Amino acid sequence: MIIPPAADRLFSSDKKQKEIANALYREVSGMPLICPHTHINPNLFVDPETTLGSPVDVFILPDHYIYRMLYSQGIPLETLGLHSNNSNEITVEQDHRKIWQCFADHFYLFRATPTGGWLTHELGEVFGVTCKLNSDNAQDIYDKVASQLALAEFQPRALYKHFNIEILCTTDAAEDSLEAHKTLRATEWDGKILPTFRPDGVTNLESEGWSKKISTLSQVSGVFIHDFKSFIRALENQREYFKQMGATATDHAVEQPTTVRLSPTEIEAIFKRALHNNLQSADAAVFTAHMLVEMARMSIEDGLVMQLHAGALRNYNPLIYQRFGSDCGADIPVRVDFTRNLQPLLSEYGNDPRLTLILFTVDDTTYSRELAPLAGHFPSVRLGPPWWFYDSPNGMKRFLDSVVETAGIYNTVGFNDDTRAFPSIPARHDTWRRVCCCWLADQVSRAVLEFEDAQDMAYDLSYRLPISAYKLKVNHG
Amino acid sequence: MIIPPAADRLFSSDKKQKEIANALYREVSGMPLICPHTHINPNLFVDPETTLGSPVDVFILPDHYIYRMLYSQGIPLETLGLHSNNSNEITVEQDHRKIWQCFADHFYLFRATPTGGWLTHELGEVFGVTCKLNSDNAQDIYDKVASQLALAEFQPRALYKHFNIEILCTTDAAEDSLEAHKTLRATEWDGKILPTFRPDGVTNLESEGWSKKISTLSQVSGVFIHDFKSFIRALENQREYFKQMGATATDHAVEQPTTVRLSPTEIEAIFKRALHNNLQSADAAVFTAHMLVEMARMSIEDGLVMQLHAGALRNYNPLIYQRFGSDCGADIPVRVDFTRNLQPLLSEYGNDPRLTLILFTVDDTTYSRELAPLAGHFPSVRLGPPWWFYDSPNGMKRFLDSVVETAGIYNTVGFNDDTRAFPSIPARHDTWRRVCCCWLADQVSRAVLEFEDAQDMAYDLSYRLPISAYKLKVNHG
Amino acid sequence: MIIPPAADRLFSSDKKQKEIANALYREVSGMPLICPHTHINPNLFVDPETTLGSPVDVFILPDHYIYRMLYSQGIPLETLGLHSNNSNEITVEQDHRKIWQCFADHFYLFRATPTGGWLTHELGEVFGVTCKLNSDNAQDIYDKVASQLALAEFQPRALYKHFNIEILCTTDAAEDSLEAHKTLRATEWDGKILPTFRPDGVTNLESEGWSKKISTLSQVSGVFIHDFKSFIRALENQREYFKQMGATATDHAVEQPTTVRLSPTEIEAIFKRALHNNLQSADAAVFTAHMLVEMARMSIEDGLVMQLHAGALRNYNPLIYQRFGSDCGADIPVRVDFTRNLQPLLSEYGNDPRLTLILFTVDDTTYSRELAPLAGHFPSVRLGPPWWFYDSPNGMKRFLDSVVETAGIYNTVGFNDDTRAFPSIPARHDTWRRVCCCWLADQVSRAVLEFEDAQDMAYDLSYRLPISAYKLKVNHG
Repeated sequence: MIIPPAADRLFSSDKKQKEIANALYREVSGMPLICPHTHINPNLFVDPETTLGSPVDVFILPDHYIYRMLYSQGIPLETLGLHSNNSNEITVEQDHRKIWQCFADHFYLFRATPTGGWLTHELGEVFGVTCKLNSDNAQDIYDKVASQLALAEFQPRALYKHFNIEILCTTDAAEDSLEAHKTLRATEWDGKILPTFRPDGVTNLESEGWSKKISTLSQVSGVFIHDFKSFIRALENQREYFKQMGATATDHAVEQPTTVRLSPTEIEAIFKRALHNNLQSADAAVFTAHMLVEMARMSIEDGLVMQLHAGALRNYNPLIYQRFGSDCGADIPVRVDFTRNLQPLLSEYGNDPRLTLILFTVDDTTYSRELAPLAGHFPSVRLGPPWWFYDSPNGMKRFLDSVVETAGIYNTVGFNDDTRAFPSIPARHDTWRRVCCCWLADQVSRAVLEFEDAQDMAYDLSYRLPISAYKLKVNHG
Repeated sequence: MIIPPAADRLFSSDKKQKEIANALYREVSGMPLICPHTHINPNLFVDPETTLGSPVDVFILPDHYIYRMLYSQGIPLETLGLHSNNSNEITVEQDHRKIWQCFADHFYLFRATPTGGWLTHELGEVFGVTCKLNSDNAQDIYDKVASQLALAEFQPRALYKHFNIEILCTTDAAEDSLEAHKTLRATEWDGKILPTFRPDGVTNLESEGWSKKISTLSQVSGVFIHDFKSFIRALENQREYFKQMGATATDHAVEQPTTVRLSPTEIEAIFKRALHNNLQSADAAVFTAHMLVEMARMSIEDGLVMQLHAGALRNYNPLIYQRFGSDCGADIPVRVDFTRNLQPLLSEYGNDPRLTLILFTVDDTTYSRELAPLAGHFPSVRLGPPWWFYDSPNGMKRFLDSVVETAGIYNTVGFNDDTRAFPSIPARHDTWRRVCCCWLADQVSRAVLEFEDAQDMAYDLSYRLPISAYKLKVNHG
Repeated sequence: MIIPPAADRLFSSDKKQKEIANALYREVSGMPLICPHTHINPNLFVDPETTLGSPVDVFILPDHYIYRMLYSQGIPLETLGLHSNNSNEITVEQDHRKIWQCFADHFYLFRATPTGGWLTHELGEVFGVTCKLNSDNAQDIYDKVASQLALAEFQPRALYKHFNIEILCTTDAAEDSLEAHKTLRATEWDGKILPTFRPDGVTNLESEGWSKKISTLSQVSGVFIHDFKSFIRALENQREYFKQMGATATDHAVEQPTTVRLSPTEIEAIFKRALHNNLQSADAAVFTAHMLVEMARMSIEDGLVMQLHAGALRNYNPLIYQRFGSDCGADIPVRVDFTRNLQPLLSEYGNDPRLTLILFTVDDTTYSRELAPLAGHFPSVRLGPPWWFYDSPNGMKRFLDSVVETAGIYNTVGFNDDTRAFPSIPARHDTWRRVCCCWLADQVSRAVLEFEDAQDMAYDLSYRLPISAYKLKVNHG
């Protein structure tokens, strides 16, 4: 039995299709990486001497995709080195070698998962580890990876270049003063790290520490926030500041993408109640819904692209939330209704081509039913790539199969890696490019697409679409 | 690299599968076209000298599948020649050559879409244009298509024969006097154009101009409508008239397929409020739900097949609706609940084999969850083919994959082209036949189906099922 | 044209993939069958002389998968030999040869359905009937099957061995005294037939004959049920009794998986109202929701695995329910919300690795959106195999494609046949094993999985996972 070489990874085993896929892939595999939406910490790049730490610091601690899977099989998060709020009660493992061993012992859990694919790619392509991680070779591989992480060429700035990243956008709170970005712009390093304006902490009136965030926003924006109008002015000022620091987009995460236009009196009354710590039960939800409409209005005025991520019920597991906080793999998706919820916003601003509204979902039933028809009609609507649990070969295939027939590829925005795990970036982009080439090759092989068109489309999906959708400035392209 | 010939379009690149698909396709590709549900204007066929107009009249103006895609990329509908209500304000492009050029400049938007496939097929098979439309050849192709459209063999009656259409059903308002159909039946032309009874305009109490439609219905039916009973009598009379004119089916479009049986007193009270222009908030919804049950009752009595299209939120974009009216590509699907909503109707009439209720959806999550189990149990329920956004290769594959395992193919009704664009009919049927043959060939190649069974099924899906489900009379079959 | 041999059934027609699939399948096709969830009557095995009856008794009468399909095409259930409550009114067909003829006449309805595949496999592999059933050969095949059914080697105990079943779990009411299981444990026969604790009849306060079931539960448990506390004690006792009789699991079927923790006062008040036949409108729903939480608590204490089947609207067709009762193919699925509904239960017990909660759905939109993320995070959650309408090649492929990328295979539990039709068991397991091998082979052929990993996974999916998830004791494994 002949097992196919890794060079053909993800391509069809059909000879003709694979040949076409490879022909398409050869032209895009080396294109620079455009990363318009990540959760990478910009401080990684500020000090040229920063290192990434131990293999556990690189692979496990920042990546809830990995430790949630281990947790699902009964391994306590403390055993993986995660710090909880009640550290008196439970011992957190400090020995990274032991954590790595536990990870290796359970590496089989990631079989047939995208995380498994990324890990294999990362170990192989970034660290030269080509044998499969297991209980026996765990410590040797730890040594090999650890020794490389200590080298200059594995420092974040070097990896950024080595990964061939052209632009990387971070995600930053609205009230952030963007110190890291300021410093980066003042250095001579030519990596392009741009901020993204994420105001959820202040537009969600129930977010933890809301009042404190409002004071910080007052400070950084230079607008004393004492009513809704000054709140809006502060946000507008701060958006302007983000733009000056290179931002081209905002980002908003909600459970349901509810939108509504309240009267000035109504919205002012809610905001005042929030300032007086006197919220009524529906206030927060309605306020967020109104703020999405306001944000669309601001986007039309200042040109920032608006991203909307909908559908995750955050902090679903109270035990994990209380002990470990947010973003620990305990967010669970729910059904989303885009059609009805977005109608107020789209009725008001959806026909304005100055608005770019990029929609993301973790409810893939909305792909063909709602998202593609919306993107296939409104000049403002574009579809973000498959997000989170769907950032996977099957997730991508479902997305392309469900969306393109109605919206075409030109109402999509190519790829986002959306990662917290810096060294996984090349693996994620490579998966997308391979899946796209495979998907296009299938259509070429069935005489649905001409090869020349598929070549254009592979290039667009891999490189051109994120640049144009996010209004990014690049040297070539 | 060998690119497959168009003759194998849509078939698998696997050699064995493709061979089987071709063997199946050869037997059905030439079968006459049965078109039991279209939005073709019957007047096209009344005057033998009617011509289809310019290439823009043929390809763009009647087809919201096309102009919504162009609109989604920022091209105003006026630029495409669509007339709006405020023509003072905005200039509508009059020059069809300019519109065609704009279309050609943006033809790449349709890559990998079914519309793109139909256009290619239509240009190639109907008009002999085999090179791909682009900015450079736009005017030449315009000339070529325009000159053919002026010829006798491109008049609607000639194309009907050339397309090998055996039966074509139009969609006609309940209060329509069917003048075109009357004239057609009096001519010697032997094309079979049949009406379909669509009463939405009078069963939806909030439809624009409802009162006027009620008076027209009074006139054409010969029943003065002054209460609910006379309304029912008028509908029954008019259904009888449609039957005399050849109709075999009715059609109903609703957002949710809510059904309910009200008491005679309740329904009478609502209808009276409608007549007195004094509707209460829930009246219209409840009335429509009751009328679906009434229509099922009438279908059992007069034998007309009942079609139900559910799930589109109509006129979603108020700006487009106000300026351009309905059916402009601005209807967006929503989640549909068939199971709970249809229970009152099915409890009352679902076990009666005299009823044929054909269900259509734009929420494909209902295929395997609700529609297939309903069709796989109730003697009355049949499933319409993939509708609208799902009238596409992937949409068809999803439909067949999701529905047949539970309901079999014999609870489906073959294909509907459902088109407003007359010359796209052969392309649409050909896509369906190819996708079915490919889907069957896959199962034959995996030893799930015997080839002889697949031959039968290809014939059934292509030709026999729509005839039997819609109770059509044909010469062969 | 070369038609593939049945030995390659369900495998890809791609040569390389098929070779890999066969290599995987060869190693698992002969593994013993683990049947942790069935609706087989344990009495089949009590008397060694029991026979299965006529071909109609074997194939048609116990299997609503089959007669619902015939009913959907207008064949009355009475024609198929089913007894209704108003037998005066309608004649029930008594002649099994006539019933068999009707079945054979309509055998084409099952083309491309899993039921068709099982029937073909069953007729061929169990009864040696290799030609396709049709109108002409119906009586000959009846003779052949009937004569074999009279032989000793076609008695249930013999077939159990012949089928290579290692463990078979039945489904038994909470108030069942398990007489058949008691007798079986006392005999020398070494087949392993285990009960499963299914308390729906007593936890659903609106179930028919609830009071009677409560008295029976009092009797069998030895606890006089006069309040909620004694009800819980009775259930706990009876669970203990089921465990002594070999049970390792419970099973719960609900429309929505709503869970809630009521206060002791509230739950006591509801239960008292039930005892006094004085239920308020929301009582039953809330009570069931509370009982699911109680059952999770008991599972943690006594170690019984908890199965939850959600999403079927039972007895949807009132005519069928009134005449023929439950489980006649007239249950229709509805949308399910697992995420929100399970949160109370999972917040309380979901982090406890002593709980195993196996989730089943007939709403496949929850696979990737809700079920996989839940199973991929909570230590207690596992995913049951595709259920009911989804127990089919496409259903399995959708399940694996949608679930594994997020949850891995190790948060699934392999296969359940869930059948009422005893001789269909091998066919169902064979379908699962083939589909899994095909699915794995596809990934091996695309260099996503290593062949050695796929070998392990094929073995896990076919054999090891149900054993470990259901805490079964086997001789090998």
